[in-house]
Amino acid sequence: MLIDRLISRIVELESPIVVGLDPRLAQIPSGFKEPFYQNLGKTPVGAAEILYGWGKEIIDNIFDIVPAVKPQIAMYEQFGAPGIDAYIKTVGYAKSKGLVVIGDIKRGDIASTADAYADGHIGRVDIDGAEHEVFSEDFITLSSYMGSDSVEPYIKYCKGGEKGVFVLVKTSNAGSSQIQDLVADNIPVYLLVGELVSGWGQELIGRHGFSLVGAVVGATHPSEASLLREKMPHTFFLVPGYGAQGATAKDLMGVFNKDGIGGIVNSSRGITGAYATPKYSGTFSEAQFAQAARAAALDMRKDLQSVI
Amino acid sequence: MLIDRLISRIVELESPIVVGLDPRLAQIPSGFKEPFYQNLGKTPVGAAEILYGWGKEIIDNIFDIVPAVKPQIAMYEQFGAPGIDAYIKTVGYAKSKGLVVIGDIKRGDIASTADAYADGHIGRVDIDGAEHEVFSEDFITLSSYMGSDSVEPYIKYCKGGEKGVFVLVKTSNAGSSQIQDLVADNIPVYLLVGELVSGWGQELIGRHGFSLVGAVVGATHPSEASLLREKMPHTFFLVPGYGAQGATAKDLMGVFNKDGIGGIVNSSRGITGAYATPKYSGTFSEAQFAQAARAAALDMRKDLQSVI
Repeated sequence: MLIDRLISRIVELESPIVVGLDPRLAQIPSGFKEPFYQNLGKTPVGAAEILYGWGKEIIDNIFDIVPAVKPQIAMYEQFGAPGIDAYIKTVGYAKSKGLVVIGDIKRGDIASTADAYADGHIGRVDIDGAEHEVFSEDFITLSSYMGSDSVEPYIKYCKGGEKGVFVLVKTSNAGSSQIQDLVADNIPVYLLVGELVSGWGQELIGRHGFSLVGAVVGATHPSEASLLREKMPHTFFLVPGYGAQGATAKDLMGVFNKDGIGGIVNSSRGITGAYATPKYSGTFSEAQFAQAARAAALDMRKDLQSVI
Repeated sequence: MLIDRLISRIVELESPIVVGLDPRLAQIPSGFKEPFYQNLGKTPVGAAEILYGWGKEIIDNIFDIVPAVKPQIAMYEQFGAPGIDAYIKTVGYAKSKGLVVIGDIKRGDIASTADAYADGHIGRVDIDGAEHEVFSEDFITLSSYMGSDSVEPYIKYCKGGEKGVFVLVKTSNAGSSQIQDLVADNIPVYLLVGELVSGWGQELIGRHGFSLVGAVVGATHPSEASLLREKMPHTFFLVPGYGAQGATAKDLMGVFNKDGIGGIVNSSRGITGAYATPKYSGTFSEAQFAQAARAAALDMRKDLQSVI
């Protein structure tokens, strides 16, 4: 079962870390980009090939020390069809190296539309009898504002045991308070959504006690995370907000249960952009951006181990 | 200003209608699909070319009687890069025929990610100094669960006057009640989101009195729609739910103000799938699916005029 594979790998590597692949051209070294621009021009095709090449470098340097990557589809989608092609190739390359892939797509729509997203991303599209896997992520992230019927089409594919979702519950950004923290009948909206998420996963719990229907819970809100952990003992958390967004290891304590499991912590720029920071730029050149990412991931592992 | 152009065209055509382009292969006539499969196989490339060819046929038959189309990106995205290419070509073709294009993408993410979606869809991507327009929709739809900071990157492009957004407020599906109807401090969540949306648009109001920051308000919830119209006099509504989802013309009365403006009503399958329904299948053959769509759009116009 996918969630068990993920948790086993976290335990084996002592590394509850997912490396976010959020490539921004301005944060990729010029020396890496130049050959692509020479060949393909400063075009969407050139940009997309840079993103794919960059992702492979990062993956090659972290696949043996972290269990998962989380490509952010927006960074690829902005370049249109070539960008989506680069995203799909990145997903495939990461899987070929044994990584679990969490596609950060945050889709959310009515059921008949969700069917199409689910078929494309975690299922199969049926082209008049010919079935094709298109995106092939392991997990995807989903928005929850539209309610249960907008999530059910994805749950259908989770029932096979090898696909999963993470649903937005309490996001890491400051503005998350405006809707998610509203209190109705003494229950904040994020907690009510958490209860829905817990219910959607109740038939999909693996041998480690966690289900294939996870929750996105920001590390930037430690007390909310602790409350959700207590109320949702069978829900695995995808935790953004560590590092560049401001949360520290001690903010993560509430995410994990007494056995030290329960979540996987994302870091994107904090790892992939490490080469440009004072801490690593003395040791690594720009050309060694992926080796710097490895060093930063190892340092993050050490940092997290201090609280688990 | 984009919103004024849209409203003027609605008034000119007496047609507050947007035709939803939600192509499902199973609902496209076999005779139309066959030549594509012969040439390109039952592949994502073949499927994508069918969707583009289908969209052109529909657009050619409705561009002079409705002001806008709303392509649903999920139906294209499910086929990967070729699907996105077909989506972008469909957007361009619709604009070339004078239609306003509302990209139904329902994206929603933290600000740094929203920047990428906004650049790609309604702005320009910067490829190390070379700027490219990629998706070029006029309006896009957005999810609101993450709050103001997740929406601001799109508002930046609206300030130019020629781009707009529709933010999910009260969606047309049954499950929308689970989160959107929660009542906090005597105010339902959907109304509070409506107030946020109204605020985001207050500096972007055109000469007809409506702003470039619109709201998605389902026709399936007529009393909520009336309340929102009263509380948000400057917010234009994108209204799904008419026809295939069950709402009728009389459910729409609350959407419009005393001048008969205030919203644009979507119909997808009800128009594009008309050829296969008892009402139209006697008059139109399968090969005339696009002419049947025109007839259904004209009938919808007549139906709506009865309540405006």
